[in-house]
Amino acid sequence: MPTSRPPEPAAAVRPRGRRPAGEDTRGAIAAAAREEFAEKGYEAASVRSVARRAGVDPALVRHYFGDKAALFAAGVIPRGVDPAQSAADLVAGGLDGLGERLLRTVLGVWDSDGGVTFRAVFSGFGSGEVPSQALMGYVGREVFSQVARVLPGPDPALRVSLVASHVVGVLVTRHVLRVEPVASLDADRLAALVGPVVQRYLDGPLPGGA
Amino acid sequence: MPTSRPPEPAAAVRPRGRRPAGEDTRGAIAAAAREEFAEKGYEAASVRSVARRAGVDPALVRHYFGDKAALFAAGVIPRGVDPAQSAADLVAGGLDGLGERLLRTVLGVWDSDGGVTFRAVFSGFGSGEVPSQALMGYVGREVFSQVARVLPGPDPALRVSLVASHVVGVLVTRHVLRVEPVASLDADRLAALVGPVVQRYLDGPLPGGA
Repeated sequence: MPTSRPPEPAAAVRPRGRRPAGEDTRGAIAAAAREEFAEKGYEAASVRSVARRAGVDPALVRHYFGDKAALFAAGVIPRGVDPAQSAADLVAGGLDGLGERLLRTVLGVWDSDGGVTFRAVFSGFGSGEVPSQALMGYVGREVFSQVARVLPGPDPALRVSLVASHVVGVLVTRHVLRVEPVASLDADRLAALVGPVVQRYLDGPLPGGA
Repeated sequence: MPTSRPPEPAAAVRPRGRRPAGEDTRGAIAAAAREEFAEKGYEAASVRSVARRAGVDPALVRHYFGDKAALFAAGVIPRGVDPAQSAADLVAGGLDGLGERLLRTVLGVWDSDGGVTFRAVFSGFGSGEVPSQALMGYVGREVFSQVARVLPGPDPALRVSLVASHVVGVLVTRHVLRVEPVASLDADRLAALVGPVVQRYLDGPLPGGA
């Protein structure tokens, strides 16, 4: 469960410098990207500055991630979270109660560092079109498509985008606008309040037809 | 109705320079603030740069609006929109159907310029705590408090913040993330889809007690 995921102190003491090839390097670059975008924002960060932070050659960053937008998408997903796997787990649990389980999972991921990563993502959005399109493209491919596949009716994309509109709003309200009491409500309570509402978008009737 | 509000060409041809005192000056400063924050973002804009754009002394800007954060809150409300009056009108229509009327009003305001002003507000949020707190403080005083007064049950603040979490999310999804089909859905259709869901937060049962 993402909610109980322990901190990863190893990452903090890992020395900078040359790294072995493979997944460790990829993970280290993603971690460096996360830190770099969080500290500097989307505009000021670069493939080069992320490479410097990760202790690798910029060509290796481009090899693994492509351009800055793709790096942003990969970098802002919190460490240890696999959105595609989370989506598969959620969908495997069935449509019944999916709304509340979805909220629990999303809050578990983005609450885990007090909203720091979410605010970094958010600040990337504010700086232009590219980062939000990069991230939404990623989320669309990895998450939305899996959820849409199990939804009833003729317009799963509409259902998924309505779900997204509420889930994103909860995160913005909680971690950026900090409107009380949503900002400091217990995650389980918040999931119990919002989950059934989101569920209506997942499998309830859609007014006005599809 | 904000949806049918015509453009205000007078603002475009109004010459810069000395202005008469009073509401016109105040309005001109707010308009200048809106343009300035939209073009430069929160960090780069200043009381001084807004004053220059409005053709007034910075002291006059401070006299009317206080500091940069307060100016941001006043400046980002689209021209011709009075949030307190809109809230009063909505509430006067009764609780029945308030969710859908609220969505219509909000979409009417923020759709009217294709989301330009909303993205400007949003970019201000991304740049730090001050602008979002300034705006939410303003919205809380002028809007939330009026809505909360007519809601049933022991926890109107919880209801209002849940409503806010969905409404903000719809705007972010539509105008910043541009997730389809929410991004390009007809406003009436979107209000018909989201309104009944928001209505549940307004007067439905809240799971888990209050």
